[in-house]
Amino acid sequence: MSKGHVLALSGGVGGAKLAAGLAAVLPPERLTVVVNTGDDFEHLGLTICPDIDSVTYTMAGLNDRQRGWGVTGETWQAMASLKALGEADWFNLGDRDLGMHIARSWRLREGESLSKVTARLTQSLGIAHRVAPMSDDPVRTQVQTAAGWQDFQQWFVGDQCGPAVSAIRFAGTPGARPSAAFAEGLGRPDLAAVVFCPSNPFLSVDPILAVDGVHDALLGLSVPRIAVSPLIGGKALKGPLSKMLAELGLEASNRAITNHYGPLVDSLVIDRTDAHETAALQGGGHTVTVTDTLMRGPDDQSRLAREVLAAAGVEY
Amino acid sequence: MSKGHVLALSGGVGGAKLAAGLAAVLPPERLTVVVNTGDDFEHLGLTICPDIDSVTYTMAGLNDRQRGWGVTGETWQAMASLKALGEADWFNLGDRDLGMHIARSWRLREGESLSKVTARLTQSLGIAHRVAPMSDDPVRTQVQTAAGWQDFQQWFVGDQCGPAVSAIRFAGTPGARPSAAFAEGLGRPDLAAVVFCPSNPFLSVDPILAVDGVHDALLGLSVPRIAVSPLIGGKALKGPLSKMLAELGLEASNRAITNHYGPLVDSLVIDRTDAHETAALQGGGHTVTVTDTLMRGPDDQSRLAREVLAAAGVEY
Repeated sequence: MSKGHVLALSGGVGGAKLAAGLAAVLPPERLTVVVNTGDDFEHLGLTICPDIDSVTYTMAGLNDRQRGWGVTGETWQAMASLKALGEADWFNLGDRDLGMHIARSWRLREGESLSKVTARLTQSLGIAHRVAPMSDDPVRTQVQTAAGWQDFQQWFVGDQCGPAVSAIRFAGTPGARPSAAFAEGLGRPDLAAVVFCPSNPFLSVDPILAVDGVHDALLGLSVPRIAVSPLIGGKALKGPLSKMLAELGLEASNRAITNHYGPLVDSLVIDRTDAHETAALQGGGHTVTVTDTLMRGPDDQSRLAREVLAAAGVEY
Repeated sequence: MSKGHVLALSGGVGGAKLAAGLAAVLPPERLTVVVNTGDDFEHLGLTICPDIDSVTYTMAGLNDRQRGWGVTGETWQAMASLKALGEADWFNLGDRDLGMHIARSWRLREGESLSKVTARLTQSLGIAHRVAPMSDDPVRTQVQTAAGWQDFQQWFVGDQCGPAVSAIRFAGTPGARPSAAFAEGLGRPDLAAVVFCPSNPFLSVDPILAVDGVHDALLGLSVPRIAVSPLIGGKALKGPLSKMLAELGLEASNRAITNHYGPLVDSLVIDRTDAHETAALQGGGHTVTVTDTLMRGPDDQSRLAREVLAAAGVEY
């Protein structure tokens, strides 16, 4: 069993939960969580980083488990005020959440990098583990629908994922360099494993893989690269993944996930409800771990983190 | 009695109340409220205009009468979040109020003038009368204390007006041009009166008078220029005026107010508790109206507005 460092690649909600689980079972010096920033956008003059926020709130234990996103104890007074003032209200900004957006936007405007801002804000909330954006350079996910290319949040929130997606691109790539923490994580001599958190491969993980040099660096690693499937019973627990698989002409199965990641991933953790896929996945050359991947709260998060680390041969 | 236009010069709380009273008794086309922007400042990346906000909330009937400032039904969740994130908490930002700051800051950043933003936001809240900043050019009030020159809000809120003030200046003047509505108001052929609202002469009205050309334009007017005293029983109802008069070596009386405004003001409205000053003020060449100047709510605001207009010979 390796006692080395774990590099976790995370999108929003599902990824955030596993990241929190890994943080619960690994000491701070043995974990780096790299977060997708393709969902980031500018709104009403604020820089909003939905996945960094999800990871931050979840790792700080502040995530709203009932609602499934955002921060607990949230209220919506500023949003009501903005609406009364005639401003856009398609993206819901909670009052507590706004503190985060204001602090981040201000620090960025003052010239701090997103990495530094993220480190500052996560540490302020008591998160000892390193959380870093995939890149300090802006990357913006865009989806192609019948209406043409549009920005991710406009489709995801504004259109509630309605229009069918025929293609996805990440504006700013190539050209976006990995953040210092990401580059350092990929190059560590004591790297023990890379964990692909259970996030949407197309929307949450692909932007991370599109950052300059990341794909090749991952391919060149000799440590386990283990993905936790975002599918449970062939469906995504949350978000548009199931719908997108159909729209992209792909089957709703873990095979679609491993096909998508190709040689970047050598090990897969799948849910018991998808255990029937095990043989096929093994036939494709993957190591397969079958367990309960649903994370209802911190206990599940830690349990799944331990199982992922065990599957990757990493001591915890 | 004139049926002409009234130009009101206003600072924050007290001025806002009289502005709301004037708006209650005059039709929209007969009133322009010009507001001090010397208190404006940049905070956490937001442009905050305290006096414009006070005037807006009060004219929209949204001001918090218990607290005496800000908007009614306010909460403080974003502020708690900002504090938890390690950001400055000396200036209290309410959640509802934040909607205003975010909307304004965004529109300004998009290139709109403060005049246009102010018109947009006041109209959105149902205010039919024209509310305009004194200038679209930034003016920043600074006070000199034993610690040197400091920005107004840092002293006013940060230091709670503690350090004695030996001098006041308005950074940005000369050079700040009157806003279009202010210039138009001063030049209207149908101008019937200028009302100096009951605001701090040094901190709230002087910045307005420091705008390029305003002092001379007011001097050149032949219409009544009437000031409502901010003193009641020789004391300011709110804010640091009483303290400042002492620190500047001035007596706490309406004579200090008329001495300060000099020939800019020819008529004064004072409170009954200061009626003993009447003869001396008249001896100084001022027309004096004695009434109840305390405004507890909309009824008082309208009543005082009617009395001010009557004293200025303006029909309502």
